[in-house]
Amino acid sequence: MAVVVDALQAGKWDREVFQELLDGGVGCVTVTCGFWDDAGEALQKLGDWRELVRKNADLVAIARNRAEIDAAVASGRAAIILGFQNSDIFEGRIAYIELFADLGVRVVQLTYNNQNFIGSSCYESNDSGLSRFGREAVLEMNRTGILIDLSHVGERTSFDTIEVSERPVAITHANPAWIYPHRRNKSKELLKALAEKGGVVGCAIYPPISGGSDMTIETWVDMVAETVNEIGIDHVGIGSDLGRKNTQADLDWMRMGRWTRGIDYGAGGHGNTKRAAWPEWFQSSSQYPLIVDALRRKGFSEAEVEKIAGGNWLRLYAETMGS
Amino acid sequence: MAVVVDALQAGKWDREVFQELLDGGVGCVTVTCGFWDDAGEALQKLGDWRELVRKNADLVAIARNRAEIDAAVASGRAAIILGFQNSDIFEGRIAYIELFADLGVRVVQLTYNNQNFIGSSCYESNDSGLSRFGREAVLEMNRTGILIDLSHVGERTSFDTIEVSERPVAITHANPAWIYPHRRNKSKELLKALAEKGGVVGCAIYPPISGGSDMTIETWVDMVAETVNEIGIDHVGIGSDLGRKNTQADLDWMRMGRWTRGIDYGAGGHGNTKRAAWPEWFQSSSQYPLIVDALRRKGFSEAEVEKIAGGNWLRLYAETMGS
Repeated sequence: MAVVVDALQAGKWDREVFQELLDGGVGCVTVTCGFWDDAGEALQKLGDWRELVRKNADLVAIARNRAEIDAAVASGRAAIILGFQNSDIFEGRIAYIELFADLGVRVVQLTYNNQNFIGSSCYESNDSGLSRFGREAVLEMNRTGILIDLSHVGERTSFDTIEVSERPVAITHANPAWIYPHRRNKSKELLKALAEKGGVVGCAIYPPISGGSDMTIETWVDMVAETVNEIGIDHVGIGSDLGRKNTQADLDWMRMGRWTRGIDYGAGGHGNTKRAAWPEWFQSSSQYPLIVDALRRKGFSEAEVEKIAGGNWLRLYAETMGS
Repeated sequence: MAVVVDALQAGKWDREVFQELLDGGVGCVTVTCGFWDDAGEALQKLGDWRELVRKNADLVAIARNRAEIDAAVASGRAAIILGFQNSDIFEGRIAYIELFADLGVRVVQLTYNNQNFIGSSCYESNDSGLSRFGREAVLEMNRTGILIDLSHVGERTSFDTIEVSERPVAITHANPAWIYPHRRNKSKELLKALAEKGGVVGCAIYPPISGGSDMTIETWVDMVAETVNEIGIDHVGIGSDLGRKNTQADLDWMRMGRWTRGIDYGAGGHGNTKRAAWPEWFQSSSQYPLIVDALRRKGFSEAEVEKIAGGNWLRLYAETMGS
């Protein structure tokens, strides 16, 4: 069976959720260590992750490169890639990037929902592109083996990054905007530019940016197939954006952090503060075999299924994090 | 010729000062990355050190264990061990210890001149010993390969640490108090307890805690010989405490940091705010051959000279940082 790689999950983790990875054939998952952390808070999150993985070392292992992913899978465990959904952890300091890389951080989204030192988010009204520090940071992330994630990043900043980056980059969790118009989703031009430089987009299951809570698995797979049709079989993967065990308080933190006294609706859209229900066919990672089967039913060959389910991410991870 | 290890320098560094290490036959030096840093500031200092070493990679290399020290020496470079003179960098968090160890920090003094989360300094009126966090921190430093330094640490905290620690510890830069009475110097009982657990004391040249600016090299070597006589040839090394290129502002920062609006005299003694002049025979690391020669003249055998000049530190570094 194909090794599944989920390029982005954003929930909470415990032994049960780790076990669900193994039950679903997930060999590798990139976890979200934080959204709004400064450097000190990010250090603590990394410490907490090490402790959690030490206590569940029979189920999971932190991986820093392709060889460590393969070793985890070979030992019957799931590889955990440590990611942050915001480059705020670097605090605008070039030196911090190498240090966090040394501590095992392997995926960093340039911006979460707000503009920062590096660039603009998809929710800002104006996107002035990659900043002076942003250009330095992209090259330093290239050098130190951190995969750049453009999922929540603004379009101009994203185009700039694809141009400046010396390695392919990722959109770990977003969908085609021409299928599901949403600020979080991506234009055909952007996805093609991503693919031309060797990048990968992870199609998301998160209901607000896909077909909603009642979407069928066939509808979701149709979107995957349409994306493949536009940008090629080597550039499409899965980034579910699953928020397993998140509470309303977790969602509020993701949206409001510490940056507003008001209400922000994030991906939910105006007036919608509630968590979305997940489709019945994706309540947890344990249901990944349903997706693999649906890809086969759609008519993808076994080689194609393997690329979409995980192979494309494994190739990109090796090219950015090291083999 | 014996490989010289200087277990503590506290000055500023540039290409000239690195070259002085090589000119003096110094194969390894533990540098002071900081005195009063919080975690974020310490990260920046580590980044600055990496950059400085990258720019002088023909002269020096950062080493994390005995093998990396040996490799640096074999390539004709000096090994730099990254140290902090204060455990404040851990901010009372157990998780930070492993993270800083991963970033290459290999020597940490439990306290600088003031009490902190872990214990008491030699300048406090009362020393209540190793704290609750202090006991945890000592064991975590043992586990993660950080050598514990008790130089500025209070006596009771020092005895507690020697008892609790599962690995030998260091007093990297201090002298026998029975020869030079000074709060920074150490009692015979403490040095014997240190040695019994396999530790090493680095005899310091810093004038305020030794024979002063006019002290002859013979007087200093007499002190070394007396220390060896009391605690054994395997437990005495050198930690010059050299503050090369430090200015008055640097000395003021070391003493006052951000903790007082008044004047603190540090090792200088009441009323003395000025930097001490260094003996004419130790203006820089390039003069280390004079010390090695003086040890020989004192009557130490070649094997004994090698232990004092560096061998004892290399043994302790291997036992704590790894071979």
